[in-house]
Amino acid sequence: MNNFTFYSPTYFAFGKGQEVNAGKYIKRFGGSKVLLHYGGGSVVRSGLLDRVCQALDADQIPYVKLGGVKPNPRSGLVYEGIDVCRKEGVDFILAIGGGSAIDSAKAIAMGVCYDGDFWDFYCGKAAPKAALPVGTILTIAAAGSEGSGDSVITLEDGMLKRGAGSEHIRPKFSILNPELTQTLPAYQTAAGATDICAHVCERYFTNTKEVEITDRLCEAVLQTMIKETPRVIADPNNYDARANIMWAGMVAHNNIVGVGRDQDWNSHGIEHELSALYDVAHGAGLAVVMPNWMEYVMDHDINRFCQFATRVFHLDMDFANPRNTAMAGINAFRRWLRSIGMPLTFAELGAKAEDIPKLVETFGIGDGETGGFVHLNKDDITNIYELCSRETIPGL
Amino acid sequence: MNNFTFYSPTYFAFGKGQEVNAGKYIKRFGGSKVLLHYGGGSVVRSGLLDRVCQALDADQIPYVKLGGVKPNPRSGLVYEGIDVCRKEGVDFILAIGGGSAIDSAKAIAMGVCYDGDFWDFYCGKAAPKAALPVGTILTIAAAGSEGSGDSVITLEDGMLKRGAGSEHIRPKFSILNPELTQTLPAYQTAAGATDICAHVCERYFTNTKEVEITDRLCEAVLQTMIKETPRVIADPNNYDARANIMWAGMVAHNNIVGVGRDQDWNSHGIEHELSALYDVAHGAGLAVVMPNWMEYVMDHDINRFCQFATRVFHLDMDFANPRNTAMAGINAFRRWLRSIGMPLTFAELGAKAEDIPKLVETFGIGDGETGGFVHLNKDDITNIYELCSRETIPGL
Repeated sequence: MNNFTFYSPTYFAFGKGQEVNAGKYIKRFGGSKVLLHYGGGSVVRSGLLDRVCQALDADQIPYVKLGGVKPNPRSGLVYEGIDVCRKEGVDFILAIGGGSAIDSAKAIAMGVCYDGDFWDFYCGKAAPKAALPVGTILTIAAAGSEGSGDSVITLEDGMLKRGAGSEHIRPKFSILNPELTQTLPAYQTAAGATDICAHVCERYFTNTKEVEITDRLCEAVLQTMIKETPRVIADPNNYDARANIMWAGMVAHNNIVGVGRDQDWNSHGIEHELSALYDVAHGAGLAVVMPNWMEYVMDHDINRFCQFATRVFHLDMDFANPRNTAMAGINAFRRWLRSIGMPLTFAELGAKAEDIPKLVETFGIGDGETGGFVHLNKDDITNIYELCSRETIPGL
Repeated sequence: MNNFTFYSPTYFAFGKGQEVNAGKYIKRFGGSKVLLHYGGGSVVRSGLLDRVCQALDADQIPYVKLGGVKPNPRSGLVYEGIDVCRKEGVDFILAIGGGSAIDSAKAIAMGVCYDGDFWDFYCGKAAPKAALPVGTILTIAAAGSEGSGDSVITLEDGMLKRGAGSEHIRPKFSILNPELTQTLPAYQTAAGATDICAHVCERYFTNTKEVEITDRLCEAVLQTMIKETPRVIADPNNYDARANIMWAGMVAHNNIVGVGRDQDWNSHGIEHELSALYDVAHGAGLAVVMPNWMEYVMDHDINRFCQFATRVFHLDMDFANPRNTAMAGINAFRRWLRSIGMPLTFAELGAKAEDIPKLVETFGIGDGETGGFVHLNKDDITNIYELCSRETIPGL
């Protein structure tokens, strides 16, 4: 096990009706004037935004509103949010929505406290030294941004999708009410579930030996997702299944399941090019990329993929030919993804094989390589996209 | 799943050599004069105390020392610690040791900020409104006090062992270096491992339905303990096994595996009377009490014990007679406890059947009952102690 630090000081309020306490938590964590940041659509239609505004009014907390966050949130709105916060003297940002609203709020929070261009934090030019405090009211179980110090933004100039990470942007509080996710369409629900599984898998496939506790915790989250996701696809109003998924989504990404071990994250990088270019759901892109990444790298450590197959999918171990078990585990994952309505190929996602050179170019490693479970160069990235572009998948 | 809040703002620094950073963390969390609180024995002999003192000297942080904490820590030293802190103007307490040193430090931390008797917090007469900040350097994986808001103290007048809980006493930081646990004798190592398992089981046996994520997380910790504990008993210097156990001990008790579900805690209560009366290791007492509690309450929910047997111990389900599976799971737990050197009976622990009326009396529920997975009255408590006092256990 590697040395590590773990610090997850977010206050989580979980369950029915918790959003009425937003004002109480804003005050507890020092907010006196708030930016409400959200997308639009269901947050407005469902009456959630109005309920939150009423709660803040009752607590006499002034606020300004900035809606319009899009999936794969854009830099343009971040710049606008930074201006609004400065002009209005905002000292707390409350994101209402899913990972996009939260990630956009985090970007604004860092940008307000920085003299330069906020994009510096996303292109690696600078590290944030401060940020406005952020709270969240989560409406989609997926990104895990409600408990993480991460944010992903797409720069409109060039459609570059990049991530930033800092302890300064861990939310001060996050309100998780599973009821708020019940109106989410099946496809978005499944894409969110896929993202949660991917957050675990990026940590699970590691070269660090002797990490039984985090192995087991990773498997616990995956087993939960495998059981609960089909239940909410079958019955969107299943509160308990929604609740299990929502908490699993936080556990999957605040790093409690990932400490002390090297992690991978290449599937996320490879997917980011797809959602940036085609504006597809991040989770749907991951459903295509991740199993193909697995297939491409499995020979690096067949035993780890056998552990995945036997412990997560409860497949029998083929001791005569472990590779068969490893491959069966990957295909079991694919079958599960298909069962919840996720795409498995470029064609099903709406991506095109002829774009592969462009995707590899934007991935941007040039002649270098990207680290992780297996180091990949641009030829490897090309090969993985090629696997994604197959029309049929052998054995499925 | 029940509504819940979860707040675990402790900063964890895990791994080899982390104790040299104690001064840095004390400063980060606002300490300027420190009480070093510890037991004696190995903390002194191993040179750990000297190393910490040197680190604080290097960081120019003044400190006073108060050693002498005993297992099942006593009220007398808490009163002494409160006086020392007030007299010396201490504003931060650093506990060095296991759960006893940490729990004693937490009691002092609350007591310094309270005009009345600190015991008020342990007998339920008052709730703490403030406490000095506490940091820890952990030397025993067991109590989970390094990441919890709990403390257990024994009042010397009457040998009453009671617990207090408050967000104010969650440690600000905890330094977890598995190397520091390598000198721990096998018996204490096993007792600590048993305590960790018990912290999970107290949460696992619940009447709350539909808590798959926390069920799975509980099982993950138990499976880890079952695998790793025998490895450190066989080889005390196995760093990685020690590391897995140490992190599992934190995960087992900061409540990440217990949120959203009713919990039990009667085994802890029943055991506390044993360690208070006989001064035995808390974990050893739990090894005797917990399986007998399980056997006594199993018919309340046979399926939950079947889940324990099949998921944790990987036993086959006897669909014709599920009770056989439930019982086999409990006895598998007993066999595992015996394999790591833990007692299973009063005789092996050093407790006496003739003391049962006294134990029940001190348990102190009178004609009432104690809540949990199954509500228990004083006859039930007597019956469970009677099971503990059997000379042999059927089926073992």
